[in-house]
Amino acid sequence: MADKLHFFDTTLRDGEQVPGCQLDIPEKLLIAKELELLGVDIIEAGFPVSSPGDFKAVELIAKSIKNATVCGLTRAVENDITVAAQALKDAVHGRIHTGIGTSDSHVKDKLKTTREDVIERGVKAVKFARNLVPEVEFYAEDAGRTENEYLARVTEAMINAGATIINIPDTTGYCLPHQYAAKIEYLMNNVPNIDKAILSTHCHNDLGLATANSIAGVIAGARQVECTINGIGERAGNTSLEEVAMILKQHKEIALTHRIDSKMLTSMSKLIEEKMRMPVQPNKAIVGSNAFAHSSGIHQDGVLKNRETYEIIDPADVGALGSEIVLTARSGRAALNFHAKKLGYNLSVEELNESYERFLEVADKVRNIEDAHLIELFEKVEA
Amino acid sequence: MADKLHFFDTTLRDGEQVPGCQLDIPEKLLIAKELELLGVDIIEAGFPVSSPGDFKAVELIAKSIKNATVCGLTRAVENDITVAAQALKDAVHGRIHTGIGTSDSHVKDKLKTTREDVIERGVKAVKFARNLVPEVEFYAEDAGRTENEYLARVTEAMINAGATIINIPDTTGYCLPHQYAAKIEYLMNNVPNIDKAILSTHCHNDLGLATANSIAGVIAGARQVECTINGIGERAGNTSLEEVAMILKQHKEIALTHRIDSKMLTSMSKLIEEKMRMPVQPNKAIVGSNAFAHSSGIHQDGVLKNRETYEIIDPADVGALGSEIVLTARSGRAALNFHAKKLGYNLSVEELNESYERFLEVADKVRNIEDAHLIELFEKVEA
Repeated sequence: MADKLHFFDTTLRDGEQVPGCQLDIPEKLLIAKELELLGVDIIEAGFPVSSPGDFKAVELIAKSIKNATVCGLTRAVENDITVAAQALKDAVHGRIHTGIGTSDSHVKDKLKTTREDVIERGVKAVKFARNLVPEVEFYAEDAGRTENEYLARVTEAMINAGATIINIPDTTGYCLPHQYAAKIEYLMNNVPNIDKAILSTHCHNDLGLATANSIAGVIAGARQVECTINGIGERAGNTSLEEVAMILKQHKEIALTHRIDSKMLTSMSKLIEEKMRMPVQPNKAIVGSNAFAHSSGIHQDGVLKNRETYEIIDPADVGALGSEIVLTARSGRAALNFHAKKLGYNLSVEELNESYERFLEVADKVRNIEDAHLIELFEKVEA
Repeated sequence: MADKLHFFDTTLRDGEQVPGCQLDIPEKLLIAKELELLGVDIIEAGFPVSSPGDFKAVELIAKSIKNATVCGLTRAVENDITVAAQALKDAVHGRIHTGIGTSDSHVKDKLKTTREDVIERGVKAVKFARNLVPEVEFYAEDAGRTENEYLARVTEAMINAGATIINIPDTTGYCLPHQYAAKIEYLMNNVPNIDKAILSTHCHNDLGLATANSIAGVIAGARQVECTINGIGERAGNTSLEEVAMILKQHKEIALTHRIDSKMLTSMSKLIEEKMRMPVQPNKAIVGSNAFAHSSGIHQDGVLKNRETYEIIDPADVGALGSEIVLTARSGRAALNFHAKKLGYNLSVEELNESYERFLEVADKVRNIEDAHLIELFEKVEA
């Protein structure tokens, strides 16, 4: 089989916990729907036990999303898992993401316990969750600094307990790419029951290496990548979804299939930047405002002769044409909202949802969406 | 010998050519002086033939900088080289950085010539430059997409012609880290005269991999890394100096010495952000405003028990204490300017230079610099 890479988006969990990024429930639902449209396989919608608002958001997203798995985070604690399972009860595909720290720093300094006790607590949590939801993912927190031999034992035990996805987070963003790859390779080669699960990457960006580590992990055998739009997340953030998606597009030799619609990346980035109030720097890869701007005369000359002299990505492939965002029947709410703003309309989430429904009808009929079509739409919902 | 890694900063060249980042001459000189203080080994000060202003800036920087090599960029064209040599005539250590495209895309589509002709032009340029300045660096433009066997022939020819640094740029930001490492390794193993030169990395960030590629190149044998403050540069930018410096600090196994004073990184970042009007996103590694912000309760708990549970870098190591910038006798103008701003003083470049001289006198005598000391300084220069 041509292997599939699963995209696990945690913008609504690891991203949303960043100072200043908090969203209200309608905004979370809007973003979840856009992520579904983007082709994300798993949406980590929140950490249900953390607050009543987060519980409600996960519950609503679980009810509304049909084409992606909806996931809730928990600690390896019964009450967390019970609450998460309640929030996920209406999900078409529900997943609990539970886990515990496995590095010496976590086991000894934070948890003040032993390695064996950590395995025991993890197994108990996985088994408990396994009876409440169809799918359980286990995270070995700070796996990046966990000794490989012990990490292999943890992985084997959690798979035996029923976890089918094992997340190997580089929680502190410490690893170099070849080190992270070696860790994944070690697990692929030393966990006897590894064929019953897939490994997942979850890399932090403290040294600017999150994307590189994730790709190194994928090449070494991981089949799920955890990431966020614009790379937002704790501290220096997480792996950028848009960077991973475009690396897979540019490097066909990695030879993995996935469902991400790259043409939505620019509008998705702008939606998250706006709703989460988290500016994207101009020199951000893929989605920064200068990502496709050529300035030096030498470069401009080359590009005019042949775009590929200096540009490996066609801006249209990420839904950007210069600074424009292209609108088609395949566009999402974020792209529509971008055009609304440009035309001077400030739509509420409800108005955006309503005009989006009408937009899809128009876009199915009309090949080129003109400003006139949009103005007609927006006037109706504002009336 | 414990090998040394040379830091080559191109903020004033590859960074300054970005739309909106243009600087005036006093600003360029200020930044060059800060880079010298930071411990950069080579300052690429500009592209002298490109404009009279750039010529003057390179000339002034060449005159003023004593503890770093000052470098000027040229194409493999006699006039470019003559002009650059003029601009560099007063440098204590002057270097010309000349080169030509070597990938098929450059050789055939842009230059519309042959591989042999490209080598001939490069050799001619290196020999010409070699007679005008003490040190010549050659860049093989788009080396990232250049076939390795040909690239080895180019490298050998340029070393024979007198270049002592060969730059292997991933001009379009295309390579994956293991591919870029393999390229450097190939050159280390297949260029007969490689012991007479060092290889340099120059990685662009189009796929978010610039830092990872640079580090992979360094581990494979490169001994110079080209980078910019905040990773600014064409399109998605260059390798971030601060990320490379902190990776070397965190990963002692790389075992290379260098001269970067990491405590200046935060103030340097703020200076470039301000002067070049290029915002740094909160989730930028090392220097983003959230780089050391812990938000989730789980993380905060861990950090309170032991900082290293979730944080591999001590904020003080990069000159940041929370959001504070620490002032000592080792601080630069940028740090002083940050404090001036905070106290409500908007200093001109001249005023900043003047108060900096006086600041150093005070800082040499006083252990803890208080706001009162600073106010006294600033009042004097504004009077």
